[in-house]
Amino acid sequence: MLNPFFQSIENKPDQTSLDLQDILKNLALNSNGLIPVITQDATTKEVLMMAWMNKTAILKTLKTRHMTYWSRSRQNYWVKGETSGNTQQMVSMALDCDGDALLCLVNQVGGACHTGRNTCFYLHLDINHLQAIIQGSAQTQ
Amino acid sequence: MLNPFFQSIENKPDQTSLDLQDILKNLALNSNGLIPVITQDATTKEVLMMAWMNKTAILKTLKTRHMTYWSRSRQNYWVKGETSGNTQQMVSMALDCDGDALLCLVNQVGGACHTGRNTCFYLHLDINHLQAIIQGSAQTQ
Repeated sequence: MLNPFFQSIENKPDQTSLDLQDILKNLALNSNGLIPVITQDATTKEVLMMAWMNKTAILKTLKTRHMTYWSRSRQNYWVKGETSGNTQQMVSMALDCDGDALLCLVNQVGGACHTGRNTCFYLHLDINHLQAIIQGSAQTQ
Repeated sequence: MLNPFFQSIENKPDQTSLDLQDILKNLALNSNGLIPVITQDATTKEVLMMAWMNKTAILKTLKTRHMTYWSRSRQNYWVKGETSGNTQQMVSMALDCDGDALLCLVNQVGGACHTGRNTCFYLHLDINHLQAIIQGSAQTQ
């Protein structure tokens, strides 16, 4: 979605520094105050999962470097790996041109998916054979 | 979000084949009938952008292999690169464990971002210096 604030900064040159509070104040959150977060393995570059953060979760993650999401089902903060041990240490966080999505690179311990697979994106869609194929084995039986 | 259909298939073994229509019928779309789509460069593994698809856009993309999003601002289909020439040929499409996010690998021509940068995720957040830093130069002045 077009966002006047982010449009106003998009042509600034490489390495321009902007005030973090200004950026956070202008985030394009959804009607529940949330922004989607893409989590990518910093080493393998595999996309591991997509989840959601509110502004507090963003700040908690930036400060602690432990990926801290907002669980929509539990309506609470969720520090990834707190119960499973499969932690995610944040390496970097970047916002997109519309201010409505985040990309975090992480050091992932264990599988990112609750099934034990490395990635949550294990169901591959194949139109030629009208099928979906599971890739990788669950570790949680 | 927990999804009974996707929970029912999550422990199936590697290479299990499922019916594509069953999968699409059970997608966890949001209240506007949309699902977030992460687009990743198939070669460099860089995450390029995040956008949205409805069920028809998913099928159009799978059939044509041209990434076809739903533009929330224009309320219309949006074949990436149709006007800019910066096309995205779909290489693969995978769904996550909750059925509420898609990951597409693409062959990207030119920059994925409307600013001309390779990726839309060019605004890096730095809590230590309370700043955000623009990475890469716009090509659209």
